[in-house]
Amino acid sequence: MENRRIRIFDTTLRDGEQSPGASLYPEEKIVLARQLERLGIDTIEPGFPASSPGDFRAVQEISRMLQRTEICGFGRAVKSDIDAAVNATRDANRRRLHLFLSSSQIHMDFQLKKSREQVLQIARDMVAYAKQFVDTIEFSPMDATRSGDEFLYEMLETVIAEGATILNIPDTVGYALPEEYGNLFRRVRANVRGGDRVEYSAHCHNDLGLAVANSLAAIAGGATHVEVTINGIGERAGNCSLEELAMAIATRGQDSGLSTGIDASQIYETSRMVSRIMNLPIAYNKPIVGRNAFQHEAGIHQDGLLKNRSTYEIMDPERMGIPRDMIVLGKHSGRHALKHRLERYGVTLGEAELARFTEQFKEEADACKVISDAHLLRILDKTPGGGAGPYSMTDFQVVSNHRKAKVASVTLRNNRTGAENTYAAAGDGPVEAIVACMKQAVDFPLELTDMEIHSLSASETAQGEAQITVRTEENRTFRGSGIHNDILAAVAEGFLSALNQAVSAREEKLSENIC
Amino acid sequence: MENRRIRIFDTTLRDGEQSPGASLYPEEKIVLARQLERLGIDTIEPGFPASSPGDFRAVQEISRMLQRTEICGFGRAVKSDIDAAVNATRDANRRRLHLFLSSSQIHMDFQLKKSREQVLQIARDMVAYAKQFVDTIEFSPMDATRSGDEFLYEMLETVIAEGATILNIPDTVGYALPEEYGNLFRRVRANVRGGDRVEYSAHCHNDLGLAVANSLAAIAGGATHVEVTINGIGERAGNCSLEELAMAIATRGQDSGLSTGIDASQIYETSRMVSRIMNLPIAYNKPIVGRNAFQHEAGIHQDGLLKNRSTYEIMDPERMGIPRDMIVLGKHSGRHALKHRLERYGVTLGEAELARFTEQFKEEADACKVISDAHLLRILDKTPGGGAGPYSMTDFQVVSNHRKAKVASVTLRNNRTGAENTYAAAGDGPVEAIVACMKQAVDFPLELTDMEIHSLSASETAQGEAQITVRTEENRTFRGSGIHNDILAAVAEGFLSALNQAVSAREEKLSENIC
Repeated sequence: MENRRIRIFDTTLRDGEQSPGASLYPEEKIVLARQLERLGIDTIEPGFPASSPGDFRAVQEISRMLQRTEICGFGRAVKSDIDAAVNATRDANRRRLHLFLSSSQIHMDFQLKKSREQVLQIARDMVAYAKQFVDTIEFSPMDATRSGDEFLYEMLETVIAEGATILNIPDTVGYALPEEYGNLFRRVRANVRGGDRVEYSAHCHNDLGLAVANSLAAIAGGATHVEVTINGIGERAGNCSLEELAMAIATRGQDSGLSTGIDASQIYETSRMVSRIMNLPIAYNKPIVGRNAFQHEAGIHQDGLLKNRSTYEIMDPERMGIPRDMIVLGKHSGRHALKHRLERYGVTLGEAELARFTEQFKEEADACKVISDAHLLRILDKTPGGGAGPYSMTDFQVVSNHRKAKVASVTLRNNRTGAENTYAAAGDGPVEAIVACMKQAVDFPLELTDMEIHSLSASETAQGEAQITVRTEENRTFRGSGIHNDILAAVAEGFLSALNQAVSAREEKLSENIC
Repeated sequence: MENRRIRIFDTTLRDGEQSPGASLYPEEKIVLARQLERLGIDTIEPGFPASSPGDFRAVQEISRMLQRTEICGFGRAVKSDIDAAVNATRDANRRRLHLFLSSSQIHMDFQLKKSREQVLQIARDMVAYAKQFVDTIEFSPMDATRSGDEFLYEMLETVIAEGATILNIPDTVGYALPEEYGNLFRRVRANVRGGDRVEYSAHCHNDLGLAVANSLAAIAGGATHVEVTINGIGERAGNCSLEELAMAIATRGQDSGLSTGIDASQIYETSRMVSRIMNLPIAYNKPIVGRNAFQHEAGIHQDGLLKNRSTYEIMDPERMGIPRDMIVLGKHSGRHALKHRLERYGVTLGEAELARFTEQFKEEADACKVISDAHLLRILDKTPGGGAGPYSMTDFQVVSNHRKAKVASVTLRNNRTGAENTYAAAGDGPVEAIVACMKQAVDFPLELTDMEIHSLSASETAQGEAQITVRTEENRTFRGSGIHNDILAAVAEGFLSALNQAVSAREEKLSENIC
C-alpha cells in the first residue's frame, strides 16, 4: 500500500459529550480543546452549535483559540443548524462543516417520516446552502451501514454534485463487521459517480467491541479520515478510541505505510484529563491507558520482562507518557521486587532487614490477595528497622453530621525526630477537613487533585480502597493509596502516602516522579 | 459458510485472574464457576493447578462440581505441571489438558534460552507424556503471532504426531491485526501436516483493542474454539470479552451460520458477579455490560428510540438480563421523561405539581451537568406537593477515629406519618455504622451488596457521588445514589434512596425492579 497520512478527527467534545452524564461546560471544552491541539489532532468537532447557546459559545471560542487544528461545525441538514455552525466557526483559521442526514430505510420511515425523494431533495438543498459559506463540506449519511447500497450511492452522488468534499460513512448503531465495513468503502469508491473526487472518513461505534477494527478496515478500504474520541467515549458504548487506533497504526501501520500526526507522548495526559473533567473513570484493563494495560501479573511474564521487555510488550508505555509501575505486589512477588518498590519510597533496607521484611510480607500476602503500596508501608512499620516514610499517622478523628461544617483532627508522627503533632481543621466535607489537617504538617503547598474510592468486596463491613493524587507547586504529582474498613481512614492514609512521597521527593531522596 | 457451533472456552479464572490485583480465593472461584456453567460455557479453565495448592484445590473442586462443562487443566510443557493438571481434573465428567510452550524466537532466546531443536524435543516429549493420561490435548505455541511460519508449522506437526487434538494459536502479546490473524489460521490449516485431523482455537489479547475482531477473524479462518474472559479481563489490557464476542455472533453471526451455546440472559449477572468478586469496576462505556451501553443521550437518538427502538439499538438489552434505564436526565430532558422517572420511585404528581417540578428541575439542570436520581428526589422535596419517597433523612452524624469502633446516628422522617426517629449504631467502619442505623427503620432484612464512590471534580471541596446497591431477602436489588460534598452523607443518601425503593416495592406500589 502507498504511504498514507491518516487524518485524525476528534469528536470527544461532540459525540463524546453524548456519553450519558458527561456533558461539559464551555470552559471545560476550551481546556480540553487546547490539549487536543497539543496531542496533534487534525480536525476537532467541538460541539453542536445549534443545540444550545453554551455549545455555540464553546465552538466559537475554540475556533478563535486554536491555531493549527481544523475546526468542524456540526449540524443536521437543516438551515438553522447550518447557520449556527457557520457562525460559530467563522473565526477559525481552517474549518469544515459536517452535515448529517439519515439514509437507512428504518430511520427514514420511523424518525424522518419522509420518502426517499424527499430525503434526497433535503440533501441536495442543504449541501448547496452550506457550500455558499464554507468550501470544505463533510456529509454523513446517518446509519449508512444499515442502508441499501443503491440509495446510499444515490444520496452520495447527490451531495458530491452539490460540492461535498468529504464523505463520512458512519456506523451509527455499531452494527458493522470489519470486513463488510471495509468493503462498503471499496464499493462506494468504485460505484459512486464522482467518488474519485472526494475524500473518505470513518465513524465507528463500539457496541460490539469492533470500533477500532472497523476503523482500520475502513482505512484499508480507502478512508483517509477517522473520527475518534479520547478513551472511546460517546453515545452508548462509545466511539473508536483514539489511543487504541493511534497506537495500532504506530505499532503495526508502518508495514502498510500508514502514519498519523498524533504526538503519542500526550496520550496519557489527554486520557486522564478527559476522564477527570467528564467524570468517566477508565477501566483498569482499558488498552493503552488503563492502569493495568502495562502491568504483568503472571510469574512467567514478569520473569520474561526482566530478561527482555519485548518478550511481553509490543509498545513502550513511556512513549505514551505513561508512568511505569511494572509489577503488582502479591503472593508471587520476590525479594527483588519488594526491594525495588521500597526504594521508590526512599526506603533502603539492609540485607537482614530485607529478609525480615520479606518474611513478614509473605505472611500478609498469603492472607490478602494483593498488597497495595499503603499496605506495604504498614508492613514496613511492623518490621524492626523499617519505617514508612517521613510521617506516620498515630491518631485520627472526624466528626461529620448533616448540618454543620465537618471537623477533623489528625496526629502525625515525624519518623525522623519521633515528635508527634496533632492538627485540627474544619471543612465543608470530611475529606476537606482531613486534607486541611495534613497540609499543616508540611511547609509547602500541596493540592488534592483526584480521589477515587471503591469497596473491595460486597458487604457493609468491606474494606474501601482510596486512590489519592496530589500536586505540588512545581506541578509534580504523587499518588498514594489507602485501604481501610473506614473509608475516611482510607482517604487519610492515601493522602498521607502521597504527602510522604512529596516530602521525600522534596528532600531529593527521590529523583523521579513516583506516580 | 457452513453452519458452525462455536465452542466458548472461558479463562476468566486463569488468564482473567492474571488481571493485576484480582487474584481469587478458591471459594470465590467455585462460586464463579457455577455461574459460568449457568451461562452455557463449553469449557472452563479454572486455574493453573501447579501454581499453588489453593489453585490446585479450586480446580479439583470445580472438576467435581460441574456437570455439563468441560474442565481444562492448564500448565507449562513441564512434567510437574502436567501431573498437577492431570490430578486436579481427575474427577471431571469431561476434561482436556492445555499445555503451552513458546514458539517465537524472542521467547526462545531470552526466556527459555533454548535452541529450536531443544524446544521441539520438549514439545514432543511433553505432549506424549500428557497423552498417556488424557485424550483431549490442547497445545498452545506461546507468542504464535510473532513466530516464524516455518518453525510454527514444525512445532504444530510435532505435537499433532504425538496426539494433540486442539491447536490453540495465541496472540499472547496482543500484536495481531484481524486479517493477518485470520490468514494465520488459514495457512496453518493448509500447510501443517495432519492439520486436518485437529480442531483450532483462538486466544486473543486486547492491547490494541482488537481482541474481539481478531477472534472473529480466527473463526472465519477456521477456528471452532474461542478463548474468552468475562468483561475482557486478563493480563495487561485483557482478553477477548465473552459478552462482546457472544453478542457479535448472536447479532451478526446468523448471516454466516455461526452460533454458540451461551445463554445471553445470564450475561449481565455474570458480568456483575465477576466485577464484584474480582474488584474490577466496569467502564461506563463497556460494550454490552457498561452502565451506558444502552443509554441514549442525544435528543435525536432519544426521539428515534421513542418512535422505534431499532432506529438506534441493534440488540435488546433485556435479552442479556440488563435492567432497562433508558434516559439520563439532564438539560435536554422533557416533562414526559421526568414524570416517567418519578413514577419509578412511586411518586405520581398532578399536572400542576408536575409543571412546578419541571420548572424547578430546569433551573437546577441549567446549573448542573446531569441530574442524578438522588438530586431529582431532592428537587422533589423542594416542590410543594412533592415528597421524596417513604423516608427522608433529617439529621445524620458520624464519629470516626483511628482506634475505636465508629458510631453513627441517623434521624429519619416517615413522610407519610410525619414521625421522626433517631437510630444509633456502631460498626467497624462508618459505612457499616450508617447502614446499621438505617436498617433499623425497616421491618425486613436489607443487605448492602455494592458501593462505589467517585469524586465529581478535581479538588478537596469536590462533591462525591455514591452508588449503593442493596438486596432484599427475595433477592431483589435496588440501586440508589447520593451526591454530597461529605462522602459519608453521599453514602447515607444513596443507601436511603435504595431503602426507599425497597420499601415502595414492598408496598406493591412498584411492580418492577428499579435498578
